[in-house]
Amino acid sequence: MRTLGEQAKIASRQLAKLSSDQKNRCLLAMADGLVNSVAELKAANAKDMEAGKAASLSSALLDRLLLDDKRIGAMAKGLREVAALHDPVGEVLLERTRPNGLKIRKVRVPIGVIAIIYESRPNVTADSAGLCLKTGNAVILRGGKEALNSNQAIANVMSRAGGKEGLPANAIQFVSTIDRDAIRILVQMEGVIDLVIPRGGEALIRAVTEQARVPVIKHYKGVCHVYVDKDADLDMAEKIVVNAKCQRPGVCNAMETLLVDAKIADRFVPRIAKTLQREKVTIYGDERARQLGGGIEPATEQNWQTEYLDLKLGLRVVADVDEAIAHINRYGSAHSDSIVTRNQQVADKFVAEVDSSAVFVNASTRFNDGGEFGMGAEIGISTDKLHARGPMGLEELCTYKWVVHGSGQVRE
Amino acid sequence: MRTLGEQAKIASRQLAKLSSDQKNRCLLAMADGLVNSVAELKAANAKDMEAGKAASLSSALLDRLLLDDKRIGAMAKGLREVAALHDPVGEVLLERTRPNGLKIRKVRVPIGVIAIIYESRPNVTADSAGLCLKTGNAVILRGGKEALNSNQAIANVMSRAGGKEGLPANAIQFVSTIDRDAIRILVQMEGVIDLVIPRGGEALIRAVTEQARVPVIKHYKGVCHVYVDKDADLDMAEKIVVNAKCQRPGVCNAMETLLVDAKIADRFVPRIAKTLQREKVTIYGDERARQLGGGIEPATEQNWQTEYLDLKLGLRVVADVDEAIAHINRYGSAHSDSIVTRNQQVADKFVAEVDSSAVFVNASTRFNDGGEFGMGAEIGISTDKLHARGPMGLEELCTYKWVVHGSGQVRE
Repeated sequence: MRTLGEQAKIASRQLAKLSSDQKNRCLLAMADGLVNSVAELKAANAKDMEAGKAASLSSALLDRLLLDDKRIGAMAKGLREVAALHDPVGEVLLERTRPNGLKIRKVRVPIGVIAIIYESRPNVTADSAGLCLKTGNAVILRGGKEALNSNQAIANVMSRAGGKEGLPANAIQFVSTIDRDAIRILVQMEGVIDLVIPRGGEALIRAVTEQARVPVIKHYKGVCHVYVDKDADLDMAEKIVVNAKCQRPGVCNAMETLLVDAKIADRFVPRIAKTLQREKVTIYGDERARQLGGGIEPATEQNWQTEYLDLKLGLRVVADVDEAIAHINRYGSAHSDSIVTRNQQVADKFVAEVDSSAVFVNASTRFNDGGEFGMGAEIGISTDKLHARGPMGLEELCTYKWVVHGSGQVRE
Repeated sequence: MRTLGEQAKIASRQLAKLSSDQKNRCLLAMADGLVNSVAELKAANAKDMEAGKAASLSSALLDRLLLDDKRIGAMAKGLREVAALHDPVGEVLLERTRPNGLKIRKVRVPIGVIAIIYESRPNVTADSAGLCLKTGNAVILRGGKEALNSNQAIANVMSRAGGKEGLPANAIQFVSTIDRDAIRILVQMEGVIDLVIPRGGEALIRAVTEQARVPVIKHYKGVCHVYVDKDADLDMAEKIVVNAKCQRPGVCNAMETLLVDAKIADRFVPRIAKTLQREKVTIYGDERARQLGGGIEPATEQNWQTEYLDLKLGLRVVADVDEAIAHINRYGSAHSDSIVTRNQQVADKFVAEVDSSAVFVNASTRFNDGGEFGMGAEIGISTDKLHARGPMGLEELCTYKWVVHGSGQVRE
């Protein structure tokens, strides 16, 4: 592992010197490489699929694992899209000349060596490697053991194809041991690994964070809320609630708890309960909600903290926006929270006081996403407050350095 | 400790709502409070001084500890200067309207709860509390045990004076136990403490980093370099070298190692050695340097990694800029490094490849400082790459949130 780290460090110095054109040529070559290696990739994937079937993985997990022509094409397309994005490296973020004549610039540069620790989907291998290359970072990939052969094959194909276009050796490295200790060693390599990004379930992310000695950017989970205010347009509220819960329930920016202002609860709760039940959503409600809507299960304290990732929903009637804010800041995961209201003052209060990575007014929580925010691509969403908060795109995969030009200035 | 944390969290929510005017009024009241409480502060300080003498602290340490009228005045002046700075909270960092009509803004907000862990100088108490208040953050202060009474008195005076101008309760809290376990508990309060900034010696900072479960921003030490290139103006080089080493040797941005291009070593080494020796600098040189200059002690591998914080200097003759860069990236601490050269290409190479928080061309390393960079004030210097790199001023004490306004948009 130590060798892997040292090699990545050397590669990162070379990557930092590549021009945007050179990096883009590598990305396009990698995309072509994936498409031209469909047979090799499918053969590696077949081994994983077979082992997965032998290990009685669920059909959902097996589906995540599968690589077919379409999915390989999608990975290649992703790399081509990243190549087309603007390169943030080298941007001057700030420039000023001091009274003593010193010219001070804050310049965007790559972070260095990034470790990505993830679970079963093999496409994360291609996506992460592409984003790290675009931003001039060396990457060490550590995927789930179920996808070991697939991930290794993807990384090999990308390194080989990129190498022909000048990709430095060891710019993309894959951890092929399934030893769990490898993760501990990786996340404790201070001075070698500059950043760890874990992507996957809460258990994996907690394990990484607890062991880490190097910075980690992450989100544990997405317990997202929609609050329907007394001054909401109830048709709009219904549309947003249904979208936030049902459009894709298995993702982190889907709503998990609906909060309704007591002053409109008698009008909104019966209506939204019926609509959601028609969409096959199981609702867990507090006492007031259960009085107002039919077929609502009783909610316990546990419900307010649960990320269902499923057609399930907590429903609570709150006294006002203050109680809504308090609920969100207490039980939420600081991910994505939305208010539906026509009242500007109430909206401003919600925006100011909800302490989450993204706060929405009259829009679905599902929009907390790098693509939807216009970043072009994202490597994940952060609920941390340092460095990156919310969607983490190319700019967030960079740091900066201060560059100061003088003409012999010394300090008095 | 847990209670301290929870109280700070509550205070942080109230602080985030204060206007710039309200915060500035608190800062000015605190400055007045310090000046009006000279007797109280000096009485508390006398207890620390007495205990320090009884414990046979060195005269340098006792001097650091001392609070007199002048130093109390300087703390008050510092708070007034912070009040006069621009408030970064609420700034819109980015604003865009998406094709679907969503209006997306990235808004600067306070981080939340910041813990500052520091050593003997009591002025750190006032400086840190002032910067955290200006940026709307609650602060938990944990100073050195030698200054316990002084720090506690400063924190009390500031809280009391600020309180009269609407400072929320527990916005500034001081850890009054000297139990070392308190630090461990503090830096592991995930979800309560948002950031830890340790300020002091390397041992303290390592102890904090190794125990921490929450983000830490720091620099361990400053092993800073000046590289004198073959194309340097040697008069300028001499001036910069002397300034970087001698102007204030006890600080982190002072030079610790001088690298000289072999092609000019026979002209520059004898001259700079004589000048530095006249300034009472002890030089530890490699073999080539010792052949060229008189009275140079032999350097070992250890010298290249040492932060002397004293009139001592490592001196090495290198083959070219590449060897200089390799030396700096290997032995340096990524803090502040400078090249002296008239050659633009060589300067560009140095700037691009030296992986430090601040890289200088033809200027002293001593300029790596928030004030010198035009930030107005700094809480410290970071050699980390995430969130803040180099001087950490008001903007770096903030994070951001995404605020999205819609008119009923849902995701397709």
